[in-house]
Amino acid sequence: MAQQQSLRPVKIKRKFTRSSPGSVLYQCGETIVLCTASVQADVPPWLAGSGKGWVTAEYNMLPHSTNKRKPRERGHKVDGRTTEIQRLIGRSLRAVVDLHLLGERMVTVDCDVLQADGGTRTASITGGFIALADALHAEFKGRPRTEHPIRDSIAAVSVGIVDNKPRLDLDYEQDFAAAVDMNVVMTGSGRFVEIQGTGEEATFDDQELSTMLKLAKSGIQQLTTIQKESLGKHWPLA
Amino acid sequence: MAQQQSLRPVKIKRKFTRSSPGSVLYQCGETIVLCTASVQADVPPWLAGSGKGWVTAEYNMLPHSTNKRKPRERGHKVDGRTTEIQRLIGRSLRAVVDLHLLGERMVTVDCDVLQADGGTRTASITGGFIALADALHAEFKGRPRTEHPIRDSIAAVSVGIVDNKPRLDLDYEQDFAAAVDMNVVMTGSGRFVEIQGTGEEATFDDQELSTMLKLAKSGIQQLTTIQKESLGKHWPLA
Amino acid sequence: MAQQQSLRPVKIKRKFTRSSPGSVLYQCGETIVLCTASVQADVPPWLAGSGKGWVTAEYNMLPHSTNKRKPRERGHKVDGRTTEIQRLIGRSLRAVVDLHLLGERMVTVDCDVLQADGGTRTASITGGFIALADALHAEFKGRPRTEHPIRDSIAAVSVGIVDNKPRLDLDYEQDFAAAVDMNVVMTGSGRFVEIQGTGEEATFDDQELSTMLKLAKSGIQQLTTIQKESLGKHWPLA
Amino acid sequence: MAQQQSLRPVKIKRKFTRSSPGSVLYQCGETIVLCTASVQADVPPWLAGSGKGWVTAEYNMLPHSTNKRKPRERGHKVDGRTTEIQRLIGRSLRAVVDLHLLGERMVTVDCDVLQADGGTRTASITGGFIALADALHAEFKGRPRTEHPIRDSIAAVSVGIVDNKPRLDLDYEQDFAAAVDMNVVMTGSGRFVEIQGTGEEATFDDQELSTMLKLAKSGIQQLTTIQKESLGKHWPLA
Amino acid sequence: MAQQQSLRPVKIKRKFTRSSPGSVLYQCGETIVLCTASVQADVPPWLAGSGKGWVTAEYNMLPHSTNKRKPRERGHKVDGRTTEIQRLIGRSLRAVVDLHLLGERMVTVDCDVLQADGGTRTASITGGFIALADALHAEFKGRPRTEHPIRDSIAAVSVGIVDNKPRLDLDYEQDFAAAVDMNVVMTGSGRFVEIQGTGEEATFDDQELSTMLKLAKSGIQQLTTIQKESLGKHWPLA
Amino acid sequence: MAQQQSLRPVKIKRKFTRSSPGSVLYQCGETIVLCTASVQADVPPWLAGSGKGWVTAEYNMLPHSTNKRKPRERGHKVDGRTTEIQRLIGRSLRAVVDLHLLGERMVTVDCDVLQADGGTRTASITGGFIALADALHAEFKGRPRTEHPIRDSIAAVSVGIVDNKPRLDLDYEQDFAAAVDMNVVMTGSGRFVEIQGTGEEATFDDQELSTMLKLAKSGIQQLTTIQKESLGKHWPLA
Repeated sequence: MAQQQSLRPVKIKRKFTRSSPGSVLYQCGETIVLCTASVQADVPPWLAGSGKGWVTAEYNMLPHSTNKRKPRERGHKVDGRTTEIQRLIGRSLRAVVDLHLLGERMVTVDCDVLQADGGTRTASITGGFIALADALHAEFKGRPRTEHPIRDSIAAVSVGIVDNKPRLDLDYEQDFAAAVDMNVVMTGSGRFVEIQGTGEEATFDDQELSTMLKLAKSGIQQLTTIQKESLGKHWPLA
Repeated sequence: MAQQQSLRPVKIKRKFTRSSPGSVLYQCGETIVLCTASVQADVPPWLAGSGKGWVTAEYNMLPHSTNKRKPRERGHKVDGRTTEIQRLIGRSLRAVVDLHLLGERMVTVDCDVLQADGGTRTASITGGFIALADALHAEFKGRPRTEHPIRDSIAAVSVGIVDNKPRLDLDYEQDFAAAVDMNVVMTGSGRFVEIQGTGEEATFDDQELSTMLKLAKSGIQQLTTIQKESLGKHWPLA
Repeated sequence: MAQQQSLRPVKIKRKFTRSSPGSVLYQCGETIVLCTASVQADVPPWLAGSGKGWVTAEYNMLPHSTNKRKPRERGHKVDGRTTEIQRLIGRSLRAVVDLHLLGERMVTVDCDVLQADGGTRTASITGGFIALADALHAEFKGRPRTEHPIRDSIAAVSVGIVDNKPRLDLDYEQDFAAAVDMNVVMTGSGRFVEIQGTGEEATFDDQELSTMLKLAKSGIQQLTTIQKESLGKHWPLA
Repeated sequence: MAQQQSLRPVKIKRKFTRSSPGSVLYQCGETIVLCTASVQADVPPWLAGSGKGWVTAEYNMLPHSTNKRKPRERGHKVDGRTTEIQRLIGRSLRAVVDLHLLGERMVTVDCDVLQADGGTRTASITGGFIALADALHAEFKGRPRTEHPIRDSIAAVSVGIVDNKPRLDLDYEQDFAAAVDMNVVMTGSGRFVEIQGTGEEATFDDQELSTMLKLAKSGIQQLTTIQKESLGKHWPLA
Repeated sequence: MAQQQSLRPVKIKRKFTRSSPGSVLYQCGETIVLCTASVQADVPPWLAGSGKGWVTAEYNMLPHSTNKRKPRERGHKVDGRTTEIQRLIGRSLRAVVDLHLLGERMVTVDCDVLQADGGTRTASITGGFIALADALHAEFKGRPRTEHPIRDSIAAVSVGIVDNKPRLDLDYEQDFAAAVDMNVVMTGSGRFVEIQGTGEEATFDDQELSTMLKLAKSGIQQLTTIQKESLGKHWPLA
Repeated sequence: MAQQQSLRPVKIKRKFTRSSPGSVLYQCGETIVLCTASVQADVPPWLAGSGKGWVTAEYNMLPHSTNKRKPRERGHKVDGRTTEIQRLIGRSLRAVVDLHLLGERMVTVDCDVLQADGGTRTASITGGFIALADALHAEFKGRPRTEHPIRDSIAAVSVGIVDNKPRLDLDYEQDFAAAVDMNVVMTGSGRFVEIQGTGEEATFDDQELSTMLKLAKSGIQQLTTIQKESLGKHWPLA
């Protein structure tokens, strides 16, 4: 099968705002997400006194991030898609954080989508990791490497089958046309954290699964290099 | 790696209530789910006039389904886990229904968990398919096979890695202890519909993924046989 | 006036689930209610430190309990009918429990209607008492009779005037046709706890009231016998 | 048994405000309720085209109606007690209105409690009837008696057992101390519309029931006379 | 420019209800507001231990206060207009209260509009001050003047430009027709507390602003005199 | 009185995103607001068929726009401050738009605060006008000037009294310390649209009012020049 191997161009602007220690404007193709992160002294009640911390995420699309304006989710319940995505981002970031080394701290990563052209959840994870690293750098700088709670990097990418061809990093149009859609979250060291493959009104077989996973792995490797370059001296795994 | 290959015992009671055309008390180990299904003439507004129908699902845990009573989700927003699960059930059932053949009908499958001991979402899909088949039998009986909207069967099972060993069909205790947890939804003909693998504060590699998928496949084949026997003459794929 | 004296057939299945100490599948005609009860160590804030306990109830109809599917009451406010019914069930059960002997315990009785054919609130009280007795048996077994908080049994039945005739234990169709509808809650020893008589767009006189109350009393006596037989050794008033 | 036969003093001020056709300041002892009524051309959707009208009521306590300020029921769900009361008021008023003669009109009666000293729901019914009569007078004046939709008058009163003595028209303190509390709604012609008797943590027997009902009947007769005098020429049953 | 200098007639009835220490039926033209005030020992959490108190207000229109019945704001969110108005009333009353002298007390002033004919928010402030003075009189009587927390009186009035003419104290019809609408809140000693001038789809210049402010000032002086006469010996600034 | 006459530095980046026709990143000192605007064919129901259009605004602070993370307003009601601000922005923009020339179009201007350091509501109005102009340019370009619905420009600025000195364009720290705080909205041609002056626990006199208004006027003139330069050929009033 012919494949689309390349990622869309990525642009990263750290310290986009000054009001939070991690603030990253992450752009991937025409998708733009503002990822900000801060650290609080309080942990959720169920962790109080445990010596462990927590990392949580919120995901939100600004109304004008889409061509047709999307109403805000306020004054009524948060929709299912939003909830699913922010739970995914939170789990993914926690997978590379040692919550005991983090100590009783609560990190919140906000992912506000300013412009949406496919892949907003994977952009939120990849950009969110950079914001997290910056926020934790402020807390842990000067400490030895072994006491820093980040133990690996994390990035995410979408793959899918469009017109019977596997494709990497789908934009909105491709995503809409895809028979199968899969989001893969992996660490910088090449281990899976999440695989979410879905055939909406379609199915897939072992062979297609295997090809999509290989494609995802190559995308994640490229994104890891980009994250490392962007963070420079703040890269927590040196 | 040593493996746990066997499913927990499954008991199925069709026509448990008379108020809906599909009504299945599905028990798998100590997990009990009441799956009911009905068909309405109205479709959601976005399908009106399209000639297509829709299948949707709702998932709910009764307060006393768990050892510690769980408050009802009423008077406030539905939690994220519930939303994720019912979206998954709906997508899974739709994957084997030809929505054009269904015509402008709305099928609602309710999955009310009476007792929870792990695997409630996969039990909801496997039992929900039987309720769906019964509800559609009432609508389409007498029609030729080619006009029946069900084009394949569907079932689901969990797999995971517990104490470094792959295991099939996890109960609550195993699920709690699992480093990696994966739900697999497959058709009776052996194609994937959904793969959702998650390492909460853990990761997994290609080899572990491959073992888990094989185990899941064998579980699904057993469940397909059980569904077929339970439905008897109502099996829609004869 | 000719009267309908007999109750609809009652079937009771105790220990229907294992996840709560009281779990009763109560069927009366075509009405089926799952009544479950559990005991918690916490009392509501206003009773903390008082030495007294509390008994509360929740009532819910499953979506497919009716022929036309009824949407769940979640994500928005609980409707007035539900609130009225669950307050009635709670008051009725509390009328036969000595809250001081109960001590600082909170008992919650959930009444989930699986199939509705009239009389769901009275079935919830009658079946709920059995679940309550089972749940308290687990807490108080081995204690002398004088320390057991249940001081009487409780049951409920509907009566009404349909086509100018008094009738006992109305099913849905009779209830719909009734000019006057009355729910009576009585103790096993024959004292009233609640009388709720309503003429929707109709009225009734002293004579009709008197006939309906007599009919209700005879129904309650039959239900008390059924409750006692079902509970066997768990009957708290031996 | 010694009895308290007399009602608390009643004061009625019609046309208290000008913005609605029925506006009655109803005072009974220290309980003050503002009952206002208006008529709209629209009926609820389920009556559209039926030729029938509807009468509905809303009940509300102003925050400072009680000695300890009671928070408003806004921004969150209406509590169960409020819902029960306003459903009772609506049913009671509908019992004396011929909805076919009313035609496709929607009457809303608002009962806002300005000061609460027991018996607010019965005051709302008794005062609400006067507001209703004034509002319908404006609509139907000049029409022959047989075309006026009001076919009887309606009033309500509480009775109870306090310190083992039956009592009529309980104030807040008596209501709080009552073992049994009963609200009786009757027509001017002496027929029952609603009986709601409740023993909270107490019970009652046939004899007590009978005494309470007699007492209620005498109270209703007095209230009917008061209503008739207050309405004067607007009395709809002349 | 010709001007409308006179206020609409004001009627004040103190002690309208007995359940709260401040209870004022304030009428201005056809606008009627029931202003009640009470004092609680609890302050909001952010003031606990500060030695300071708080004054807050709630504003509400009764459904039949308008000619077309207005639905209650319950069971859903409070609308923007209500929120704006009650924040304005609270700020205005706090401007004349020394929160340190008040001590850790919470004063709540409820303004329930019984009939609305323009100027309900300014009537709420002017009448609310009288209720506040009565409620604080009960708390501070007998204390020397220097220890009483009220340090000035407060009143409010509307002004506007209608048909190119400045007008004082607009009724509903004038308000509807006004190109510019301004609410002015001033102390009895002649200092501004709030100016809210708005041109909905219109604008105004310096000259118009100046004329409106003069008119407002004269209105406030008249209202201050009326407040003082009404409170008599309870006037806190003697 | 010594005065602070200068505005904080303003930076404007038009076309910040491509998904909406008006997209302006507006920075004023350390306050950053993303103002986006779009035009829809639908008007609100009350304008349907009127030939008139509408302009509305929404205001939102991103959680990390403040140093201490602010929770999102979703899943519960929008707070009063947010509601007040977005109503002000909407009214201000409508004051310079001819709704008849706009025709049956709905313009929505979203003001999302990315970083907050005082003056977010005035920045939203000043920046929102630029987004509005860009969005309407796309709709009306090529039409003669007399058919363009924008009839004036609009801008806003804050003034206040801090340490007894009048000050222009307050940052967060000055705003917090201000005894009096006033927001002034004016057209480019020098007419008032809104004046909102508030003394929280303080008051002000005629002289102070006059000084603050002069200061505001000079600020607005500078902002008008900046808006005109930024829009260049898109300036709608050439």
